[in-house]
Amino acid sequence: MPDPRFFTASGPFTAADLAERTGADLVGDAKLRIAAVAPLEAAGPEDLTFFDDPRYRDHVGLTRAGAIALRPKSRALAPHGAVLLLSDNPHRTFALAAAMLFPEPSLEPGIAAASHITKQARIGARCAIEPGVVVRDNAEIGEGCFLGSGASIGRGVVLGAGTRVGANASISHAVIGARVNIYPGARIGQDGFGFVPDAKGHVRVPQLGRVMIGDGCEIGANTTIDRGSGPDTVVGAGCWIDNLVHIGHNVQLGRGCIVAGLSGIAGSTVVGDFVAIGGQVGIAGHLRIGAGAQIAGGSGVIRDVGPGEKVGGYPAVPIRAWHRQTASIARLARAEAAGPAQEES
Amino acid sequence: MPDPRFFTASGPFTAADLAERTGADLVGDAKLRIAAVAPLEAAGPEDLTFFDDPRYRDHVGLTRAGAIALRPKSRALAPHGAVLLLSDNPHRTFALAAAMLFPEPSLEPGIAAASHITKQARIGARCAIEPGVVVRDNAEIGEGCFLGSGASIGRGVVLGAGTRVGANASISHAVIGARVNIYPGARIGQDGFGFVPDAKGHVRVPQLGRVMIGDGCEIGANTTIDRGSGPDTVVGAGCWIDNLVHIGHNVQLGRGCIVAGLSGIAGSTVVGDFVAIGGQVGIAGHLRIGAGAQIAGGSGVIRDVGPGEKVGGYPAVPIRAWHRQTASIARLARAEAAGPAQEES
Amino acid sequence: MPDPRFFTASGPFTAADLAERTGADLVGDAKLRIAAVAPLEAAGPEDLTFFDDPRYRDHVGLTRAGAIALRPKSRALAPHGAVLLLSDNPHRTFALAAAMLFPEPSLEPGIAAASHITKQARIGARCAIEPGVVVRDNAEIGEGCFLGSGASIGRGVVLGAGTRVGANASISHAVIGARVNIYPGARIGQDGFGFVPDAKGHVRVPQLGRVMIGDGCEIGANTTIDRGSGPDTVVGAGCWIDNLVHIGHNVQLGRGCIVAGLSGIAGSTVVGDFVAIGGQVGIAGHLRIGAGAQIAGGSGVIRDVGPGEKVGGYPAVPIRAWHRQTASIARLARAEAAGPAQEES
Repeated sequence: MPDPRFFTASGPFTAADLAERTGADLVGDAKLRIAAVAPLEAAGPEDLTFFDDPRYRDHVGLTRAGAIALRPKSRALAPHGAVLLLSDNPHRTFALAAAMLFPEPSLEPGIAAASHITKQARIGARCAIEPGVVVRDNAEIGEGCFLGSGASIGRGVVLGAGTRVGANASISHAVIGARVNIYPGARIGQDGFGFVPDAKGHVRVPQLGRVMIGDGCEIGANTTIDRGSGPDTVVGAGCWIDNLVHIGHNVQLGRGCIVAGLSGIAGSTVVGDFVAIGGQVGIAGHLRIGAGAQIAGGSGVIRDVGPGEKVGGYPAVPIRAWHRQTASIARLARAEAAGPAQEES
Repeated sequence: MPDPRFFTASGPFTAADLAERTGADLVGDAKLRIAAVAPLEAAGPEDLTFFDDPRYRDHVGLTRAGAIALRPKSRALAPHGAVLLLSDNPHRTFALAAAMLFPEPSLEPGIAAASHITKQARIGARCAIEPGVVVRDNAEIGEGCFLGSGASIGRGVVLGAGTRVGANASISHAVIGARVNIYPGARIGQDGFGFVPDAKGHVRVPQLGRVMIGDGCEIGANTTIDRGSGPDTVVGAGCWIDNLVHIGHNVQLGRGCIVAGLSGIAGSTVVGDFVAIGGQVGIAGHLRIGAGAQIAGGSGVIRDVGPGEKVGGYPAVPIRAWHRQTASIARLARAEAAGPAQEES
Repeated sequence: MPDPRFFTASGPFTAADLAERTGADLVGDAKLRIAAVAPLEAAGPEDLTFFDDPRYRDHVGLTRAGAIALRPKSRALAPHGAVLLLSDNPHRTFALAAAMLFPEPSLEPGIAAASHITKQARIGARCAIEPGVVVRDNAEIGEGCFLGSGASIGRGVVLGAGTRVGANASISHAVIGARVNIYPGARIGQDGFGFVPDAKGHVRVPQLGRVMIGDGCEIGANTTIDRGSGPDTVVGAGCWIDNLVHIGHNVQLGRGCIVAGLSGIAGSTVVGDFVAIGGQVGIAGHLRIGAGAQIAGGSGVIRDVGPGEKVGGYPAVPIRAWHRQTASIARLARAEAAGPAQEES
């Protein structure tokens, strides 16, 4: 059961409630009371768990969970008597049930006396604004926004309804959609890295663009998104960007992209919809990454990537070629260690 | 035209004004009014654009820009009737004109009532200090500095005239020059990563040095620069450091170095003047990187690099050798995939 | 001598005092006054230096230091007349002496009027809480804690005695031990990167775990540690985590681990005690890294690592194999450059 110091349970709910609200098909005791969620091996009789990863196939039959979300084809694996929530996406069923059992705390609207909001800013209804927040002239904060302590909102910035800004984050020169979740310490809209190299002193290139972020995005903790140099930097709706990611000026991300931690995308690169980028990936500037492409963690991308292509390595190549290269170099080194190095003869 | 919510135009200016102020030679209608700047393909009759990259050679003749900054040798490429601003560095001309048309907003001097400045701190004339700023004992803030909301300035810290500190940045144990631009969330002067490993508990090594930053540097958002352990950590004048960069204790950067995002330089490494370091580069500790060296993005440097040397790869080697290695391993893997792997016979 | 604007000397002390307090054996003038510490080549007659790295063997005899910490076996290297502090760990002796000569400034207890502490929070005795700090309901701050300006402490968070939180750091959903040192801008306890991918909009998986941090840890500047998804994210006692490190949800670090800057550990990976992780290392999720393992800087780890194993490369392999691979590929590329590429014939 989640620590009550940090999470508030809204349940228990009956299995029937969970099935109805998550859209799953119910098999078994509709009145079973479910209070929490847990992984297969840790779940107890009041917990919902889920199974979807074949690697855990042997764990399903042993779970003590009261209810299991799983695919219809897997139902025979479940222990006798367990309540089943059947769907084609059991992880999604589990996530929706968890959000029902432990909903995010509802906003307590109110503007702290110790916040600093200029008269020229517009604040929507039912916002929660904590101490130390600064909102500058002509900013427009939508309805039901949360601004965490110490957050800095620059002149003219627009936040859509229901957007949340974590503690000590800063935003300038940006137009941000609805229901965007900006984590603590994120930096959005500062100057891009634009200058003309010159031995007498590099000359700054004024950065005259914005950051445009679509609805429903997640922007991770301490992540940085620079504003455009003239064109805008764009993050499409529904992108999930992890912590400590750097997005350079004029980058365009399509809808639903996933960018894992410590990755960087250099200036003016265009990324299509639903691209998945692993952790610590570097993508050079002025490239095109096609929709649906997948880039393995740690890769360094220095050429365009086609739609749906899977690449890995440094420099990145098609993922199968990378695996072959890795195997070849290992064989070569082993062969040289075992016998005379013919290449040097 | 840049979004007026974020940028204030000071123009239009005549082509003659722009030529004079940027030092370019004017060809064409001296009275043409220029209001903004834009890339070749987006510019219109009131815009200045520029051409310097041969890859865009075919775009020059098609631009609708009223004025074009370009090199004298390229003037034949410009469309008939366009006003020309000729110079040996058209990008620089463009940057200077852009700064003239959209100057950074001038500081509005004033110290917010909700800032926290001890009586033992000295604040220069015409500073702008926002709410939530803390300035501790004996700090010396030069004339015309900007301290963004929530910035933390430690005891004894010195900031030169015209230095800007972004929102929620923190600075301690540091002496910083004039006209330095510290972006939001940057961390300067905290303890270096210094300890004696010990199974009974690693023993902290007191970090008794400082951070010294020269005039005119840029320190990117959420970048971290640790103070020295005894010697100082030094950033030479005119360095441009991007976001999410880590500079370890005792590192010395020469003048005019460029460090792109997510790079890290480990303790005590000495970097010469005008070194260019790509994104996500790692440089091990206690190395010497010669003046004018260039390090490709993603490289891992574990040996000294000579002056003017260009290196790449992990571990980094001369850039040509890295390209050859990349080609060789690709050929080897293809050959093995195509036929029997002779190395294993 | 350290800059008195930033460091306060508590000495000088006699050599006998230093020997006694650090547990070293004294050879020479017990009454020699030592005021500061310095490296071999910079030390003067009132300084303590140390020697332990054989690479500096030639420097020992030339040092002008008044006192030298070194191993008993190295004492013959010291210049005539120098006072010796003999121990098996001279760097540790040096560190302890430095901490004695320049102790961290003692806390000045007090709660700033401009901090924001709810009545439901409990604050231990002798805490120092700076302006702009926010402490939310039911948080428990131990005795003698320091909360730097702008720090954000979430509902229910527990900090052990003597823990220090740097400026503008934020902590939520976390139980933190005693004497933990959290650097400025660190982000602890925010949502992990948990979602179910879905073309209609990725579905958030509620993150219902915590961050548990053991006693005596260091958490670097702008480092991010996400809370668990259900299980907790755990950092064992005595870990040293550098700047700009990302620790994903459900990661478990054992005791005394060292993680250098810009490294990332993906979700659910379990790291044993006293593992040493270099800079810019990436470790994939759901792996096991055995106790005492060492991972070279820049490595990308995608398989389990055994206890005590040393690995390097991308993807990481045993460190010797990596060095052989690096040499082999260099030879191959040179051979191909020198003669006909037989693999392509």
